[in-house]
Amino acid sequence: MNLTIDTLRLTRELETLATFSDAPAPAVTRIVFSEPDLRARAWLKELYSEAGLHVREDAAGNTFARWQGTDSGLPAVGTGSHTDAIPHSGRYDGTVGVLGGLEAIRSLQRSGFQPRRSIELLMFTSEEPTRFGIGCLGSRLLSGTLDPTTAATLKDADGKTLDEGRTAAGFHGPLAAVALQPGYYSAFVELHIEQGPLLERRNIPLGIVTAIAAPASLIVTIEGEGGHAGAVLMPDRHDAFLAAAEIALAVESAARSTGAIDSVATTGVCEVFPGAVNSIPSRVRLGVDVRDIDPERRDGMLTRLDQVCAEISARRGVRVKIDVMNRDAPATCDPSLVSVLMAVCEKHALAFDRMVSRAYHDSLFMSRICPTSMLFIPCRAGVSHRPDEYSSPEAIGRGTLILAEALARLAS
Amino acid sequence: MNLTIDTLRLTRELETLATFSDAPAPAVTRIVFSEPDLRARAWLKELYSEAGLHVREDAAGNTFARWQGTDSGLPAVGTGSHTDAIPHSGRYDGTVGVLGGLEAIRSLQRSGFQPRRSIELLMFTSEEPTRFGIGCLGSRLLSGTLDPTTAATLKDADGKTLDEGRTAAGFHGPLAAVALQPGYYSAFVELHIEQGPLLERRNIPLGIVTAIAAPASLIVTIEGEGGHAGAVLMPDRHDAFLAAAEIALAVESAARSTGAIDSVATTGVCEVFPGAVNSIPSRVRLGVDVRDIDPERRDGMLTRLDQVCAEISARRGVRVKIDVMNRDAPATCDPSLVSVLMAVCEKHALAFDRMVSRAYHDSLFMSRICPTSMLFIPCRAGVSHRPDEYSSPEAIGRGTLILAEALARLAS
Repeated sequence: MNLTIDTLRLTRELETLATFSDAPAPAVTRIVFSEPDLRARAWLKELYSEAGLHVREDAAGNTFARWQGTDSGLPAVGTGSHTDAIPHSGRYDGTVGVLGGLEAIRSLQRSGFQPRRSIELLMFTSEEPTRFGIGCLGSRLLSGTLDPTTAATLKDADGKTLDEGRTAAGFHGPLAAVALQPGYYSAFVELHIEQGPLLERRNIPLGIVTAIAAPASLIVTIEGEGGHAGAVLMPDRHDAFLAAAEIALAVESAARSTGAIDSVATTGVCEVFPGAVNSIPSRVRLGVDVRDIDPERRDGMLTRLDQVCAEISARRGVRVKIDVMNRDAPATCDPSLVSVLMAVCEKHALAFDRMVSRAYHDSLFMSRICPTSMLFIPCRAGVSHRPDEYSSPEAIGRGTLILAEALARLAS
Repeated sequence: MNLTIDTLRLTRELETLATFSDAPAPAVTRIVFSEPDLRARAWLKELYSEAGLHVREDAAGNTFARWQGTDSGLPAVGTGSHTDAIPHSGRYDGTVGVLGGLEAIRSLQRSGFQPRRSIELLMFTSEEPTRFGIGCLGSRLLSGTLDPTTAATLKDADGKTLDEGRTAAGFHGPLAAVALQPGYYSAFVELHIEQGPLLERRNIPLGIVTAIAAPASLIVTIEGEGGHAGAVLMPDRHDAFLAAAEIALAVESAARSTGAIDSVATTGVCEVFPGAVNSIPSRVRLGVDVRDIDPERRDGMLTRLDQVCAEISARRGVRVKIDVMNRDAPATCDPSLVSVLMAVCEKHALAFDRMVSRAYHDSLFMSRICPTSMLFIPCRAGVSHRPDEYSSPEAIGRGTLILAEALARLAS
């Protein structure tokens, strides 16, 4: 099999996809079911059709582009990722796995390869938690991890539900029908940028993922007492933002004090109400993200946060409510699938690292319904979720080549 | 002179004014030049005309309603306040001084009083700093405290300038013409709710203001480094929000450590960029308000904040920029005007306290161009800038009566 990757075309397609954005270039903002998201979806479906793939969309907006195999009774081989992007982020996170997956399929087609199992390219809905507060919405539903009734009533900041959002975007039918039947896929491989610095630091072109970290995310709501910033004396105050500031610093300290480099915790969202310079904040909403590859250590951080919030609440006379948006188990990747990926790298004499993903991915949920692994490519300085996120065409091309050959082996 | 205050009508007018709002009742949001602000202005001008007052508006939108005196060559007597309201605030802050001032004039008219000096009721533009980041815009311009060229280019959060905002609202002409000629007013008295708990606690119906605290407000911008909340390890982070959290706590500590009950400091605004739960904050904008009746102690807090920000900047590897939006001198009220107000209270056998205003007011700037004082009425639990802000009709009526009689004495 003589595989060639059209890196130039793939690079151009990544550039085009980046233009579907609510932020000025080089930043990308593509929130699920926003107008840029819908335009990106339409454009992708055209590319799928050009490649002769059969397209199906489910009620959540997950998109499946299928290259029919000769033995259509067999479970398919899946690949893919997401194309939604958090506010002011970059152009490679997720998109490399969707457009790279497409180019992998096209390269197999060009080589004359004929798959026995069907190969299916997925574009998952809302891997990013930006709009509905919970990440991997599409893959959670596909894997049966998220109750469809709960999912339907998730709300965005404007109070719009997921059900209203998907319907307005043209995705109808019951969410309960989204979950895939057991045995639908024989394997799933996701190509993705590392979003960390390790591959670049070690000058290794590829990472094969053996485990995915266990993320948790929380919404912390603090209710204090507002008032005039000039008139209410300091001892009389119950300032919600000062309590929030202490909680954010406690989030940092919880991660730093585990003694493990793999513990990370972030307060990425802070909304202050009423938000006027001369008004004492009466209410604050924090979005907190806590991760570790060790779920017990991760839960230890959460327990510590509970305690700190209780202490701050009592001392400052504010109410603190913690809503756990998700608290997922980590995933172990399938050993025989990892072996296949290693064998392909070895055939191409490509150095690789076995590695753990600290970022979470749709693969975390796909691993619950089929053998799953991921291929990581280096990204500059480990930067992600920023406009200067960058992976070189060479790095993307190499990852796509390995993905293509792996898909061929898995589909034969 | 037999003065009667139509408290019922005044209460009804305060209720009507509260309906011009961008927030659902009982909250009031009336930002300068917003649609509710413009509707409120139009409604007020109708009331002024009904009372036979001559209305003038200047290029900044300050509104003057004049009851012509018999000796029109003499400097006028001024009263009034503001009607803009910060997000989700109440219905009494400022409005009591405008509608109470109007009712004071009407009660004098009903009594058959004929003023020798003209009596002018002012409605100042943008006492609140919500939109353009600096409070008392109208009175700063009237008193020549704020350079008109600087004022014109002040920007709101959408990047719209004051010049664009006022023009769109229908206020034209040069801002340089707003400053009043020396000797325009012989005296200015502002009726206002206390916005603090002292009158209510002591069960005193009226406060006569002898000094107004020295406010300062700052915009603190923190630039750190963004990145993926899962992938960037804790030691590699330069999280702008964690630096902001430390700064907010330092603002609190600066006020609490002066040893004086009159030192207050507040971080009322915190905007986090990009603001996604799985993204490390790269930039934060804080709005900070620092006040004291002693300007040296106030400046001591600012100096301490400078030092703390420098330390945080160095330790966390983030850039911290402090923009001083205003840093005003305190005002001493005119002793002979204070004596007039005391004499009126004594005539009506009304107990009063001489007091300091910790909140700042347009009177702070009017005091630079004419003898100025304020009348405070109690408000429930000292609450202000909140939807549950409340002053009783009796309290408002009493304040209006004292104001009316004081205006009569000053205009005779």
